Amino acid sequence: MKYRAILYVISLLLIFLSFGMGISSAVSFIMSDPDALVYRFSGCAAWTFIIGYALCKLTERKRGELDFGSSTRDGFVTVALAWLVAVIFGSLPFITCANLTSYDAFFETASGLTTTGASVINTELLTRDGTPLGNIVESLPHHDPNNLPLPAGLLFWRCLLNWLGGVGIVFFVLLVLPLLKVGRGTQLYNAEVPGLKTDSGQLTPRLGSSILSVTLVYLFFTILGGVLYYYFGMGMFDSVCHALSTIATGGFSNKTASIGYYSSPGIQWSVTAIMFVAACNFSLLLKIVFTGKFPYFADEEFRFFACMVVVSILVITPLVYFSSPEVISVTGDPAFLPRTFSNYLRVVAFQVLTIASTTGFCTSDYELWNCPVAILIICAMMFPCGCGGSTAGGMKCSRLIVVGKHLINEIKHCVYPRTIASVRLSGERIDDPLVAKTLAFVLCYIALFIGVALLLTVTEYRPNARYRQPAKATLVQMDAEGETDLAQTHQDPVTTDSTAPTPQPYGITIDVKTAFGASIAALSNIGPGFGHVGPSGDYHWFRPISKIILAITMITGRLELYTILVLFLPSFWRK
Amino acid sequence: MKYRAILYVISLLLIFLSFGMGISSAVSFIMSDPDALVYRFSGCAAWTFIIGYALCKLTERKRGELDFGSSTRDGFVTVALAWLVAVIFGSLPFITCANLTSYDAFFETASGLTTTGASVINTELLTRDGTPLGNIVESLPHHDPNNLPLPAGLLFWRCLLNWLGGVGIVFFVLLVLPLLKVGRGTQLYNAEVPGLKTDSGQLTPRLGSSILSVTLVYLFFTILGGVLYYYFGMGMFDSVCHALSTIATGGFSNKTASIGYYSSPGIQWSVTAIMFVAACNFSLLLKIVFTGKFPYFADEEFRFFACMVVVSILVITPLVYFSSPEVISVTGDPAFLPRTFSNYLRVVAFQVLTIASTTGFCTSDYELWNCPVAILIICAMMFPCGCGGSTAGGMKCSRLIVVGKHLINEIKHCVYPRTIASVRLSGERIDDPLVAKTLAFVLCYIALFIGVALLLTVTEYRPNARYRQPAKATLVQMDAEGETDLAQTHQDPVTTDSTAPTPQPYGITIDVKTAFGASIAALSNIGPGFGHVGPSGDYHWFRPISKIILAITMITGRLELYTILVLFLPSFWRK
Repeated sequence: MKYRAILYVISLLLIFLSFGMGISSAVSFIMSDPDALVYRFSGCAAWTFIIGYALCKLTERKRGELDFGSSTRDGFVTVALAWLVAVIFGSLPFITCANLTSYDAFFETASGLTTTGASVINTELLTRDGTPLGNIVESLPHHDPNNLPLPAGLLFWRCLLNWLGGVGIVFFVLLVLPLLKVGRGTQLYNAEVPGLKTDSGQLTPRLGSSILSVTLVYLFFTILGGVLYYYFGMGMFDSVCHALSTIATGGFSNKTASIGYYSSPGIQWSVTAIMFVAACNFSLLLKIVFTGKFPYFADEEFRFFACMVVVSILVITPLVYFSSPEVISVTGDPAFLPRTFSNYLRVVAFQVLTIASTTGFCTSDYELWNCPVAILIICAMMFPCGCGGSTAGGMKCSRLIVVGKHLINEIKHCVYPRTIASVRLSGERIDDPLVAKTLAFVLCYIALFIGVALLLTVTEYRPNARYRQPAKATLVQMDAEGETDLAQTHQDPVTTDSTAPTPQPYGITIDVKTAFGASIAALSNIGPGFGHVGPSGDYHWFRPISKIILAITMITGRLELYTILVLFLPSFWRK
Repeated sequence: MKYRAILYVISLLLIFLSFGMGISSAVSFIMSDPDALVYRFSGCAAWTFIIGYALCKLTERKRGELDFGSSTRDGFVTVALAWLVAVIFGSLPFITCANLTSYDAFFETASGLTTTGASVINTELLTRDGTPLGNIVESLPHHDPNNLPLPAGLLFWRCLLNWLGGVGIVFFVLLVLPLLKVGRGTQLYNAEVPGLKTDSGQLTPRLGSSILSVTLVYLFFTILGGVLYYYFGMGMFDSVCHALSTIATGGFSNKTASIGYYSSPGIQWSVTAIMFVAACNFSLLLKIVFTGKFPYFADEEFRFFACMVVVSILVITPLVYFSSPEVISVTGDPAFLPRTFSNYLRVVAFQVLTIASTTGFCTSDYELWNCPVAILIICAMMFPCGCGGSTAGGMKCSRLIVVGKHLINEIKHCVYPRTIASVRLSGERIDDPLVAKTLAFVLCYIALFIGVALLLTVTEYRPNARYRQPAKATLVQMDAEGETDLAQTHQDPVTTDSTAPTPQPYGITIDVKTAFGASIAALSNIGPGFGHVGPSGDYHWFRPISKIILAITMITGRLELYTILVLFLPSFWRK
């Protein structure tokens, strides 16, 4: 393994990341965070830059030296290590400026960079010295109480992580690696740009210019989003942050009520629109720019995605309309919206697109819609998600189409064993090995989904707790009972004092629904799942080990499984 | 399509079935059911025989005529139609003797013949004239109150359906069809005998003699079961019934508390042992008989199945031991068992094997174990289930092994693109097309599982009901609220009288857990699922349309998907 080549790439990544931190600390200064926080933030940026620069100088190729000549294996290690290092350094501001514990910061940064948007930030979250994170609000002079308990610089940093993770890092890797001849460009491209790859496909032919164009498209929709939000009445700072996290299908929001805080229909509809665009194939967007034609409906994957979204909205809206007779509950203020069809349509369309695009914003909790059909449809949409070549997570619609067509072929094959049918996508024939690869991918995805859920129930195992206790009041009662049981066994003098039971910080025990919800929400980079990690829940109550598992799951999902899974092969490390 | 050939097979099936009914009506007579019931039962048998005989004579091949020369398509239609007809005629005794509605009888018979063991029989079930089925108990002079509200003849018929469905019908089809040269033997064999087929495999080489031997093994374990149960103190009649339904991995029981009614550890352990045997490959059992060797551990599928079961038991038992500190709740009387390791081991082993073998008996409700890990493991076991060539349902372990090995190969392929690895099972190479077929099967299975669950939430949709209301008390309260809501909209004078709300017979609304539980329980032919269809629940509360869907799902699962799925292809019916 060519360690020097790998470390050189990592060093460039750190320099790249340090500029992001520098911008965030500038924002922190502009938004008049306390001076101490600004200093700490810029300190993080400076140290990241210094370490990156030093590493770069140490590992740089000497004049006249040939290229690093790296192998396929080096490529995999580079990508995995790059993500790990990016997450570790990206978590420094959370640790220094918000006093988060290392695993909470790791989770939050991984969630940001993978565009998941699952958050541990919560007023109940305990910091390293054991005080609630919520206390930080009081120390901030100009803090909006509707915001999450974080200084403005960190709020911006979270959304910037989303934005960088969406396409930024991909472009960094793609632009830097070919220049270095480290690994093979296409293979890393495959690892980082999601979706089904055909040889004739997408961006690969003219890599450099396409990247520039896609970056321009990405920038364009970022700015468009920001302008739209500002126009419809969102504040300047929040517009910028939400614009960054929407186009990346990230889903970090500054407000505790997410987009639900903004009751303006204009804002909610424009977020919905940008989420839709973000889940579409960017190279198709490019074609529109270059050719002036609108080839979306010629593209089978887009047709499928659009149909899935539209049909889901059209099915769920009337069902919810008749299931929740009076009002629809939303996050934010007011907590309920009156029963008009436009209200219901807006809320449902938002929730469908936030899941289908794997963004993870929220204006309403679908678990409170009183409509199992809606939950099941939303649950089913958590697997295919957006189109290939977009910033969305999940398996991608193209894979689902290929698998579906192959299954129908297999069934036909039972009746007519002599016919040989091939799978076609948008008219192009998909080779059998690619079909087999796609089938394997989908099965791997399902296996990981189940495996992670199982692992979470193990790591969250609490012998004496009752599970399925969503309400706070019952939780306290449960702890009291649990402690009495414990007391009988261990004779612990503190816990026998059952007259004043204190609620434990990690008092929630996982149930099967939450386990599956958290697993798919992390794997597909969505954010909200079901149960305790549903749209109204968050991830602060998980044990440290579970947070690490979930963070790794997010990275695995973001890199389309194989890049991380190969690292678990014993044969990968041999020789 | 050769309709005459198809109808001829059906006619033989009806004659075969009428003998089963005849035996059951004899049992009904011996167990001193009321005379009217015995008459009706034997009437069903007589009519089935007459119709079958007449059809046989009408469609019989004339002397000198060549064979029917049927095609592959005819084979599929024959099998599907044979199951449909068997279920319809098999449901006649339920309609005539217990006054069940046609869809309830259809569900119960389909559940019996597919060895699912899911039951609608419940004291709350309404019969055709609107009275509860429970009333039938009072009309029976010698009825045990612990039994389900059915006469003894019907109790026996249910278990006989299990037994016939387990292997009997397979053998009927296999014995009759080659004689008739209707369709191709191997193809129908593939459709009816579950598991992964390799060309070198299992029973095919000498079909006739193997069938005889397997029948003998099947009979041997039926008798062994009966003798064991009787020896450990089960009554004669119940021993016979349970012996029939255990070896078939059916799971119908005469008692409302299932096997939990018998508190004797001997009975429970012997049922556990027979369930284990029933999930093993019968051709391997034959090899033991013929060669005297014990080749089980040379068989990779058996090793996997045995390990899965043993590991699950060893993991779940201590977890449940520490999660349910005082007692473990069981069905039957007493309702709780004290906390000894042997009690916990017995209960857990029973539940693990009842799921892994897809039998569906029950001595305890795993949903009350307070242990999400146990539920997730049990949930995961509902997919692979037993070995190929057994009477168990599910995807079969061999398929899971093939898929798992293929996935590892695919991941390795990412790192070493030039290596070609093939999948081996018990040392034998599996061809690539068979691997692809297996992958497609597993994905079809998962797609059906999700599809049926989604369909159930749609068919069970109730606009104004709250879902997730397991307790009766809350159900009544919910109805009161729901009716008030209705009253405001429709001005219904009856429902506004909310002072005395009457509980609706179909008052349970489906939640996501129940939908998924019912779907997998039907597809894998298990019986109990989760939620309202868990080990403590039953299927009586479903709407008629849902019962039909579930019955078709059971048959689809029993025939390993493709035999039924091809019928939904438009191209199958063309020309």
